[in-house]
Amino acid sequence: MEHADKPVVVFDAYGTLFDVHSVTDLAETLFPERGHELSQTWRSKQLEYCFLRTLGDRYEDFWSITDSALQYTAGKMGLDLTTDAHNRLMQAYLALSPFPESPKVLRAIQDMGGQLGILSNGTDSMLDHLLRNAGMEGLFTHVISVDRIKKYKPFPQVYQMACDAFGLSPRQIHFVSSNGWDASGAAWFGLTTFWVNRQSAPVEQLGVAPHAMGATLDDLLDHLLHGTGLTG
Amino acid sequence: MEHADKPVVVFDAYGTLFDVHSVTDLAETLFPERGHELSQTWRSKQLEYCFLRTLGDRYEDFWSITDSALQYTAGKMGLDLTTDAHNRLMQAYLALSPFPESPKVLRAIQDMGGQLGILSNGTDSMLDHLLRNAGMEGLFTHVISVDRIKKYKPFPQVYQMACDAFGLSPRQIHFVSSNGWDASGAAWFGLTTFWVNRQSAPVEQLGVAPHAMGATLDDLLDHLLHGTGLTG
Repeated sequence: MEHADKPVVVFDAYGTLFDVHSVTDLAETLFPERGHELSQTWRSKQLEYCFLRTLGDRYEDFWSITDSALQYTAGKMGLDLTTDAHNRLMQAYLALSPFPESPKVLRAIQDMGGQLGILSNGTDSMLDHLLRNAGMEGLFTHVISVDRIKKYKPFPQVYQMACDAFGLSPRQIHFVSSNGWDASGAAWFGLTTFWVNRQSAPVEQLGVAPHAMGATLDDLLDHLLHGTGLTG
Repeated sequence: MEHADKPVVVFDAYGTLFDVHSVTDLAETLFPERGHELSQTWRSKQLEYCFLRTLGDRYEDFWSITDSALQYTAGKMGLDLTTDAHNRLMQAYLALSPFPESPKVLRAIQDMGGQLGILSNGTDSMLDHLLRNAGMEGLFTHVISVDRIKKYKPFPQVYQMACDAFGLSPRQIHFVSSNGWDASGAAWFGLTTFWVNRQSAPVEQLGVAPHAMGATLDDLLDHLLHGTGLTG
């Protein structure tokens, strides 16, 4: 499906609509010269723990994993993570900045008559905080957390939840993620996938290509309107 | 089980008995100043692809994943990976150096009357190359590849294979890994786990601790002989 008149567009949240590295400024204030490394290591460990806990069938929710990943990161970097610093960083994770183009692109899709959704590793509570903080509550027809099935992406049933929520086949859903592994997982499952390649990374070597790609959500909008950005 | 008279000790291969970063010298020769980054990125991507392909139920064997991870790494680093360079790096992966203490510790465990095994993500062919190249073939009662069940660690059934091979309960098997996530997965499963913490990393925040730990395989031997290194 291309040029869909009234597209159903389901977004990943962390890294796609919201900038996980918007915690860097606070991290830099708390730990001068170490903010970038803290943010990068924290994110990387958070994802690893999601993968491992799904593989090992030891689910803990995303808030708990985000906390564990922060604790590990502080240990690895030799930081003195006080209770205050810990709490401030965790709270910052509830108030991540949306990428600059996120709100206007979402509203433009609605102006096309499209429907919006979120499919995220975050808990309902975390997503609720994020959306309210950004003034983006009420934009989405469905906000779906993996917490319902207690498996993280790219477990196939996660993507099935988007199909179930909208009552559509995988192909009928545009799924948008900036995470190459998430775009690959969605493409494996059969969703019509748009990869927001914010870091100009190579395509993941996972035997599948996203349907289309671009550098920001503005490119997604062009794709939905004009069919640009196709990979095949 | 501590001070086991005749322990059954099952080893992870990559990073535990063999140094995955022994490819760094060749990588440095091929790509001056970039060898370390190449080796680190290659390994990290290799593991991520193992996790993702198990999560997404899209198994490819470890040789294929090692190749894909190398291709991705070259793309990410902007390297001109010629066919020759590619082939030499892949061949180097079949001839990784054992850690200096590996052979003597293995023989010391045998001298105790212990039995040895390997439980690895590698294919039978890759493991066969590694062991023959290092003169370590014939030391192991069982060399077990995840390729038999087409799921990577830490999928629980992987660890079950070690129990099945030796006809023992999880607790009766000493499992040894330098990979914190692998030690955690094994401990989740119930194996008596020794973590070889070669990088002095913090314990993974995965809600489980290895039974014992040390810095090298020499510490494993002390543990088996004298019960040292317990974490609890």
